[in-house]
Formats: sequence, C-alpha cells, structure tokens
Amino acid sequence: MKKIAVLPGDGIGPEIMAEALKVLAALELPIELKQAPVGGAAYELHGHPLPEATLQLALDSDAVLFGAVGDWKYDTLERRLRPEQAILGLRKALGLFANFRPAICHAPLTDASSLKPELVAGLDILIIRELTGDIYFGQPRGRRTAVDGHFPGAEEAFDTMRYSRPEIERIAHVAFQAARKRNKKVTSVDKANVLETFQFWKDVVTEVHAQYPDVALDHMYVDNAAMQLVKAPKKFDVLVTGNMFGDILSDEAAMLTGSIGMLPSASLNERGQGLYEPSHGSAPDIAGKGVANPLATILSAAMMLRYSLQNPDAADRIEAAVGAVLDAGLRTADIAAAGAATVSTREMGDAVVAAV
Amino acid sequence: MKKIAVLPGDGIGPEIMAEALKVLAALELPIELKQAPVGGAAYELHGHPLPEATLQLALDSDAVLFGAVGDWKYDTLERRLRPEQAILGLRKALGLFANFRPAICHAPLTDASSLKPELVAGLDILIIRELTGDIYFGQPRGRRTAVDGHFPGAEEAFDTMRYSRPEIERIAHVAFQAARKRNKKVTSVDKANVLETFQFWKDVVTEVHAQYPDVALDHMYVDNAAMQLVKAPKKFDVLVTGNMFGDILSDEAAMLTGSIGMLPSASLNERGQGLYEPSHGSAPDIAGKGVANPLATILSAAMMLRYSLQNPDAADRIEAAVGAVLDAGLRTADIAAAGAATVSTREMGDAVVAAV
Ligand SMILES: CC(C)[C@H](C(=O)O)[C@@H](O)C(=O)O
Ligand SMILES: CC(C)[C@H](C(=O)O)[C@@H](O)C(=O)O
Repeated sequence: MKKIAVLPGDGIGPEIMAEALKVLAALELPIELKQAPVGGAAYELHGHPLPEATLQLALDSDAVLFGAVGDWKYDTLERRLRPEQAILGLRKALGLFANFRPAICHAPLTDASSLKPELVAGLDILIIRELTGDIYFGQPRGRRTAVDGHFPGAEEAFDTMRYSRPEIERIAHVAFQAARKRNKKVTSVDKANVLETFQFWKDVVTEVHAQYPDVALDHMYVDNAAMQLVKAPKKFDVLVTGNMFGDILSDEAAMLTGSIGMLPSASLNERGQGLYEPSHGSAPDIAGKGVANPLATILSAAMMLRYSLQNPDAADRIEAAVGAVLDAGLRTADIAAAGAATVSTREMGDAVVAAV
Repeated sequence: MKKIAVLPGDGIGPEIMAEALKVLAALELPIELKQAPVGGAAYELHGHPLPEATLQLALDSDAVLFGAVGDWKYDTLERRLRPEQAILGLRKALGLFANFRPAICHAPLTDASSLKPELVAGLDILIIRELTGDIYFGQPRGRRTAVDGHFPGAEEAFDTMRYSRPEIERIAHVAFQAARKRNKKVTSVDKANVLETFQFWKDVVTEVHAQYPDVALDHMYVDNAAMQLVKAPKKFDVLVTGNMFGDILSDEAAMLTGSIGMLPSASLNERGQGLYEPSHGSAPDIAGKGVANPLATILSAAMMLRYSLQNPDAADRIEAAVGAVLDAGLRTADIAAAGAATVSTREMGDAVVAAV
C-alpha cells in the first residue's frame, strides 16, 4: 500500500486537486491518500504555511501530490510565513534535488502558443532543474552595512550562490540518464563567463559526461539559452541547469509551448520520493470559478505513478485519457479555441475519468 | 570637439564598426575618433583583453563605440584573459551602471519574429538593467571546502549577490525618469520571495517611487517576467531589474522582437559618459564574410549622439535613414525576407550613408 500526501493548497489548488483525485479513484489503485493543509490555507488554520503535521505527513509518504500555493493577500506577511515558504521547506526537508519540467506542445494545442506553429509543433524538451542548492538556500544572506563595493557604509542586502561538487554530480547523472531514454543530448546551461559557481558547474558536468560517451553534451550561457528557447526550442532535448536559472528558463519554456495549463512537474530525491505539482501557479484571480484547467495536476498524478509508485501502466492510462479528451475537442478556458467546446474544471475531470 | 573611443573588437566587430564609422563620417560632426584594440584582438596584440592604453582611451573619451568581443578559440584561456573580461572591466572602470536595452519590433520586420505577428507588431519596450552591481561583481567569490550545506567537507564554488541602497536608488531614478518620457509605467523585476537582495530591491524601488506619483509601478517575479515577455510583451513599458536578471530578460526580449540584429544598447555612468554597442554578439561563425547586419551598430552610434554627445538631430537623421533603407526593402541575411533584396554588410552601410 503506497502512501500519498495530498496537499491542495490555495487559489485553484483545491479545485484542480479534486479532479486529479477523481481520476486516481477511477483507477482503483492500492494507494492510501491523506490530505493536509499547506500554504495560505495552512497559515489560516495553524499560523504557518508548512505546519509540523503537514511536513511529517509528507516525510512519511511515498509521494506528495501538490496543488498550488499563494495569494496576493499574504504578500505583506514576513517572508517566513508566506505560502511559498511551504514549497521551499518541503523541497529542503525531503531533499528533492531533481526537478523535472517537461515542456511539451500537445499537438491539438499548437495554435495556443505565442510562437509560430512551425516552431513549436511536436516540441518535447525536458528541463532538469537542480532544486535544493544555489542561491535559494546558500548562507550567509541578510542585510548589513557594506564594507566595500561602490558605496562603503551604505545599507545593503546580500545572498550567497553556491554549488558543491556532489550536488552538481548527482544532478548531472540525472540529466545524462534521462537523455539516454530520449534523444541522447544534454545542454548544460551556465554563466561560466561571469560566475565562479557556474564555471565549477561546467567543469563538473564535463567530468561526469566522461561516463556517458553515448550522450552528446553542449554548454550554453543562460542569456543565450533564454534566446535559443525563443528562436529554435526544438533544438533542445534535455536542458540541465541550477536552481535560479532553472526557475526562469523552465517557466519561459513552459509558456512558449502555449500549454502551461497542461504541464506537470516532478521533484525527486535520492530515494525516489517525489513531489508532483502542476507547473502553473495558484491563480487566485480565477479561484472558485470552476474554470481552471485540471490537466496539469492530472498529468502530475500520472508522473507520480510512473516515478514514485512504479506503476507505469496506470501512468500511461492517464496520459492516454488526457490525449483522448483533447483529441475529442474539450478545452478549458485557458486553452479555448474556435470550434472547440469550452468546459468547466469539473467537466474536464469527468471527461478524463470517463476516458481512463 | 567630442572624443570618441572606437573599439571594434572581434568576430564581426570590425566589419560592422566600419559601416557605423562611414555613417558618422557622412554627418561631418565635430568629433575626434580614436581606435584601440579590445577583446581577443587585444589579447593577440598585447596579451590582455583590455590593455592599459585601451582603458585609458575609454576613460578619456566622452563615449565609447564598441563592436563585439569573443571567439570560441579563447574559451580555454583563464577567465581574466578572456575577451568578455574587457567588457566587464570597462563597465566597472567607467562606472556604467545604467544599461538601456530597447526591445523594438521594426514594423517592416514583424514577420522575422518567432512570435505571432499580432503579439509583436508595434512592440516598443525599454529594459533598464543595472550593470555594475549584483552577483557580477560581488565579493567574496571563489572555490573552497564547504563547511555546511548538503555536503560539508566537499569542494564548492560560490559567489555573492549584493545590492546597496544607493545602487538601487540611482537605477530606480533612471527608470522612473525614462518612463516619464514614455508611457509612464515601470515594472520592477525581482525575486523577493526567495532572495534577501531582491526583497531589498523591491523595498527601495517602492520608496523611490514616492517621488514619481505620475508614473505607475508594478512588481513582478523574474520567472513570471520571463513568461509574460512571451505571452504579452506589449504590456510592458519600462522594465527595470538587476544585472543578472537583466542579462537574461534583455536577451530574451531582444530575440522575441525578431530584430536582434537591429537592436542597439547604451550603458551610461553618472556623468553621462557612455558605452554604445549592438545587442548581438561577435558571431565568429560569420565573421569576414560580409554578411553581418551593421544596423544595430549604426543605431548604437545614434544612441551615442543622443545620450553622450547631446546631438539629438544627428541621432534622428541616422534613425530616419535606417527606417528608410528598411522601407526600401533592403535586408541583410539575418532579416532576409521573401521579395526583399538581400544585401551585404557594406551595401547596407552604403545605403544608410546615402539616406542620411
Ligand atoms: C514560489 C517560488 C519560491 C518557486 C521557486 O522560485 O522555486 C516557484 O517559482 C517555482 O518555480 O516552483
Ligand atoms: C559577455 C558577458 C559578460 C555579458 C554579460 O553577461 O553582461 C553579455 O552577456 C552582455 O549582456 O553584455
């Protein structure tokens, strides 16, 4: 009996999670689901975005299925109490160092992209973002009086970017192994021309590459990667990078597909435990209206079955069902198209259940 | 007599600079031009990408007109000798803290964009990137043995991100003042949800905004900005951000226009001295073939006339001439279009001279 922690969160989180749970129920799997509050919802109930009981549930589970967190109304809270801290806390506590962010253009949605159709038709790239290191967690950080720089004596704020050799090695292995199952090409994105951290990143990735002679490796500066994603996204296969650059590039790539409401993500640790969540946010502006697209969450549940529950057949069934409802012309408002039926969150979930 | 340091650099730098100099000559301005080697070209001659004499010439000039630097063949040099160090050295020595990167979609080139024409037609946004602070120059940086983090005892590399109050204040003033001359809207891009440096950035920009009640200010996270540039770039007017995020977003925005071969940039210090350069790189793959687009360099010369030489009339003449040659259908290979004549670097320069 595999254990799953279900954390719906804020905004559209509960609505889209409800649909994913319906789909999981329809599969009648031997899984035990336990739900807990997270983000703003947890702050309202317990005064903290990641209460001890929620964290413990996640630690005790094989996988976490996560909705979304955040709302404008928490913007004025001190940082440690804001909803996003829950997600950073979970990543750190579970050691979820490997973030998989597929950027796929679903064939029936090619026209939803901002890009010209010929640039995105058939697009299928995998961004692998390191998720527990870099400037996200580096110490020291804070405010102080500057002792050097342009304005000694002035108030300043600072953060520390850092990567250690084993942190880079393990994410590089993840990238090369993923590429082996795909088109055998890894692009490592750095800023080695400016940053010590990313010169080291480039050096270590190059060393690890020696163990994968069957996979091609190239290196690209982050500014150039931001351009090449726009110019010719299909030239990428697996793109691997650090936490901060990965945050920016994975969102850029997701939006390029036009399918951001469709894109799942997985964040794994060394033991195969994972957190699965849609690539989009909590969208408080449309929460409760029944218009959100549940497919990214449903596809995140499929990724969960594949990576943490060793049930690739169930994952395939969900993915095929999603493909079928799209082929049948069903669309939520975010991917609405002329001639296709615009359906609600619940109708979309029901259609996937029917197709599964 | 205004003094201009001309630094052609590497790759296509000398070719595109030659065309810009022809255009300046045609205007018969009271300027004194002095040329010096920079980047790989300077390394070959003097063993350093920014020789003392080149730096001194730049410091003694009212403006620097810069081509481009860099070539794969210098990738194995130690970092301090690589061509890009020249540009970092010039920014630091001249205190060029304010980088102006317009992202404009030239009307006749709308179809050259990766984006659908309706998303970019008429696009005119101004990215203002802080250029002398942030993780580019923060100390300490280097390699060491980790004392904490995930792998204490492991080898690690690190850098320091930092911004002081006066650094943020002065770039915020630049942004609000620029917005006053445009559509009166500033978007400040940060990562305040994760970084101390950018929470401080957000706080200080908000404080400075109190002096500009006629300008609207909004704040956006960098990952969201990377998405919104793809989704709806025309919603931006002035976007202001730090050095690292600005590096990524300004290149993404430039590529979105489809006109990257057309986009100039200016980097100014507090005394109005400036460095002017095309937004594109040195393109060693096409160097010497006479196919590079000289228009970004020619338009950089126009920016130089406007911002550092107080000659807006001459700047207007150059910009009008560039508009005229595009309207006449002339195109270099990078912006080639069906039905338009593809011309060489020199022919494009000659056409601008004729139109000026
Ligand atoms: C909410 C925020 C802390 C988070 C991040 O920056 O990692 C988010 O943008 C993401 O990509 O999951
Ligand atoms: C060459 C490099 C150091 C530089 C930078 O990162 O600033 C370049 O990318 C730029 O944007 O001018």
